[in-house]
Amino acid sequence: MAAEQDPEGRAAARPLLTDLYQATMALGYWRAGRARDAAEFELFFRRCPFGGAFALAAGLRDCVRFLRAFRLRDADVQFLASVLPPDTDPAFFEHLRALDCSEVTVRALPEGSLAFPGVPLLQVSGPLLVVQLLETPLLCLVSYASLVATNAARLRLIAGPEKRLLEMGLRRAQGPDGGLTASTYSYLGGFDSSSNVLAGQLRGVPVAGTLAHSFVTSFSGSEVPPDPMLAPAAGEGPGVDLAAKAQVWLEHVCAHLGLGVQEPHPGERAAFVAYALAFPRAFQGLLDSYSVWRSGLPNFLAVALALGELGYRAVGVRLDSGDLLQQAQEIRKVFRAAASVPIAVSNNIDEEALARLAQEGSEVNVIGIGTSVVTCPQQPSLGGVYKLVAVGGQPRMKLTEDPEKQTLPGSKAAFRLLGSDGELAEEPAPQAGQELREPCTVRPAQVEPLLRLCLQQGQLCEPLPSLAESRALAQLSLSQLSPEHRRLRSPAQYQVGGSWQRALLPQQCPGTSP
Amino acid sequence: MAAEQDPEGRAAARPLLTDLYQATMALGYWRAGRARDAAEFELFFRRCPFGGAFALAAGLRDCVRFLRAFRLRDADVQFLASVLPPDTDPAFFEHLRALDCSEVTVRALPEGSLAFPGVPLLQVSGPLLVVQLLETPLLCLVSYASLVATNAARLRLIAGPEKRLLEMGLRRAQGPDGGLTASTYSYLGGFDSSSNVLAGQLRGVPVAGTLAHSFVTSFSGSEVPPDPMLAPAAGEGPGVDLAAKAQVWLEHVCAHLGLGVQEPHPGERAAFVAYALAFPRAFQGLLDSYSVWRSGLPNFLAVALALGELGYRAVGVRLDSGDLLQQAQEIRKVFRAAASVPIAVSNNIDEEALARLAQEGSEVNVIGIGTSVVTCPQQPSLGGVYKLVAVGGQPRMKLTEDPEKQTLPGSKAAFRLLGSDGELAEEPAPQAGQELREPCTVRPAQVEPLLRLCLQQGQLCEPLPSLAESRALAQLSLSQLSPEHRRLRSPAQYQVGGSWQRALLPQQCPGTSP
Repeated sequence: MAAEQDPEGRAAARPLLTDLYQATMALGYWRAGRARDAAEFELFFRRCPFGGAFALAAGLRDCVRFLRAFRLRDADVQFLASVLPPDTDPAFFEHLRALDCSEVTVRALPEGSLAFPGVPLLQVSGPLLVVQLLETPLLCLVSYASLVATNAARLRLIAGPEKRLLEMGLRRAQGPDGGLTASTYSYLGGFDSSSNVLAGQLRGVPVAGTLAHSFVTSFSGSEVPPDPMLAPAAGEGPGVDLAAKAQVWLEHVCAHLGLGVQEPHPGERAAFVAYALAFPRAFQGLLDSYSVWRSGLPNFLAVALALGELGYRAVGVRLDSGDLLQQAQEIRKVFRAAASVPIAVSNNIDEEALARLAQEGSEVNVIGIGTSVVTCPQQPSLGGVYKLVAVGGQPRMKLTEDPEKQTLPGSKAAFRLLGSDGELAEEPAPQAGQELREPCTVRPAQVEPLLRLCLQQGQLCEPLPSLAESRALAQLSLSQLSPEHRRLRSPAQYQVGGSWQRALLPQQCPGTSP
Repeated sequence: MAAEQDPEGRAAARPLLTDLYQATMALGYWRAGRARDAAEFELFFRRCPFGGAFALAAGLRDCVRFLRAFRLRDADVQFLASVLPPDTDPAFFEHLRALDCSEVTVRALPEGSLAFPGVPLLQVSGPLLVVQLLETPLLCLVSYASLVATNAARLRLIAGPEKRLLEMGLRRAQGPDGGLTASTYSYLGGFDSSSNVLAGQLRGVPVAGTLAHSFVTSFSGSEVPPDPMLAPAAGEGPGVDLAAKAQVWLEHVCAHLGLGVQEPHPGERAAFVAYALAFPRAFQGLLDSYSVWRSGLPNFLAVALALGELGYRAVGVRLDSGDLLQQAQEIRKVFRAAASVPIAVSNNIDEEALARLAQEGSEVNVIGIGTSVVTCPQQPSLGGVYKLVAVGGQPRMKLTEDPEKQTLPGSKAAFRLLGSDGELAEEPAPQAGQELREPCTVRPAQVEPLLRLCLQQGQLCEPLPSLAESRALAQLSLSQLSPEHRRLRSPAQYQVGGSWQRALLPQQCPGTSP
């Protein structure tokens, strides 16, 4: 099986990662002779997450990987047999054993596109039994990916384009793949890098990380490294005992800062020296294991200055507690007199805290965000749905008494209308140049079809863009959204117009125009 | 590698599912000659989730699986080499290649135990480099598992012991393994079953599921099943055309309910017949695809009565929209006149909605919960931490200026004190029969050590309990908690006493007694 060979495949969903009712319905369809009826489902959401007026489409690459590898193994079929009625016709299980997605066709919003309520992110067509079975895994793969990409995009909008945003939430993620998905799609949504090594290995997400408090507190100061010498950056001249050199600089630093030379913690300094010996070109000081002002900062400066004497430049400092903004500003004042190094901060940063750190003059350069990007605490699920819209070419709808849960029958086409300024036009219209009156009049300068043929009869129609390309599309898409829709609090809702507003239900409705 | 052979292993975390800084610190330790220093970390949380006063410990089985399979593959080491400095000593990578957990020892709270702030869920000791690398995956595996088990336990407390609780949140889960983890640990926390087939296959969680609206709406009523005949339940006598039989019953039902016989949707009835042909012993009607009262209910009754004539008994009905409580009560009135069948409900059920459905006289028997059990929207992460407490037998602590982030140094023992009534005693004490005065006096009838030796030098010390056994322990543990601590809103905080309250810091602190 392809997925078994592919290291990526091991991280992807498996066919039995589905709700049991998909399997019981499969048997129902099969018993009714309808397993191969042509069917079409649409995957969409009903409300934008986080109180915003936009979402980013994401998760398609995981869906494609899943669909191409989709095949029930013997053990899977045996497990299903164990939970279905014992007198089930064995021919049903033979049917399951032969299943794959070679007759499945998928149209999709490209990853990084803007997505709006009711507009399909995926249109999945193929034999009824198969496309029904796909419901749960596709929802699982698209909904969270789109949610976290949207969450990351919001954080990027708050931070502005200059701050470097690091996703570091793996430990708080909802399960291992939750972490992998979050790292992948927070990058797509606008983050610069992730702490998650697996996301780097499997997805090519840039990874970043330096040291934790445990590294610092593990040193008492009495440790003797086997090789305390560091060669100069230029590679010429004799090596220098870095710890001894830092000790010399410490006296200068303490005098400058008005501290006693005994105040900075010797274990912290030993940890900084150990880290600098391993990473002389990438030394970052984590300042708050003991006391930022009386220990972390002087120890960092001593080691950074010792490195500087050897021609190396420290890459910055990190703060992980306290008032991050105020400390960054005060540390910057010290650095102005000594060296210019980036300041990184972390510690429970949410949208509100980020806004404060992003304000002008904050002196913060790198922001690490964990829980609030990964778990999306404002709204931890997108609420995607996957609805049957046609069988055998005939439209289907759910006419429940709950109006919100009613669906629009029939396969939809979706277009995006652009004004002459390149911004998304507010109003709906299916044809360039054509005047429309309902619900308002617009003459779009440009009409873009939104859904692209992605898989045709199981075959990939064009190579998927790289993750970095999808990330660029996301930023481009967001830039085309007008400020009143892009606003994160109480935004104007973006109008998705339907051509069914002219062709009244229950006729088949041919198009939506977001 | 064991994990590769084991179908379970594919779903487990991998060594590179970690933060990059674990790898950079590994290099730092190695360069400092400290890779093999004996170190001990403790994994705990600082506050109980959801505003409650308890949590359930969970995730240990995933940790054990991860630790036993822990080994960096060549591709993993190569990836790390690609993100570490190019002049890193190749001997470091040889060290990584040889790493495993054969020198790691783990003590743990058994899964299903009550857990309280500050008390270790895991104590992990071994060579410093290895136990540092384990931080992120262990936090990822324990935190969410414990969070979702606690969430499920709260929902079970609200529902009471009689209602059947079905977890059905896979589609809303944060990534595929998020779904698998949620299904596994919501069962441990007190749910009865899950919709997630993979959780059944890999973890033995009982699975449940019947049919979705798409199954119902896929039928127009004109379909002709290849074999419309159903044999009687007893297996004797000729088969019967179930659709024709249901049509006959429909007239009686409509007359009884005061409906026109044309009102119930023929497609919905065809779907019910198709499902009943496949599952004559497990027919459940999903009533709200069109109209519960004018279509779903009469169609269900017609098919259920037709099945009844053949000796089969329908297993119930399901409602997925509208006022679930009111509908259940009204439907029960109809059933009292016709048949007695369980009523299942679902649709965005949170703690508040569940409390309403659990009230006396609700007439609801089965409750399906998705998003709110799986994504834990009240608090989507536990905030577990993994802190270094000793190196080389010497206690270590972080003395940051943020008091909440300070840690208690040294390895801890934890005990639980039980009163003579078997309930958890409120006050701290390390010895049965010994009087203690600070912070209050208690003479526990029984003292239980909490942490059990789980892995010793990489070897499993005793077989892990089955998931069902851990589930039983969870219910037993919860029953021992007194009502004021078990209360979900504004509970009394359970007192975790520390023997360090007698032996003042900074001396090594030998014990906590939750």
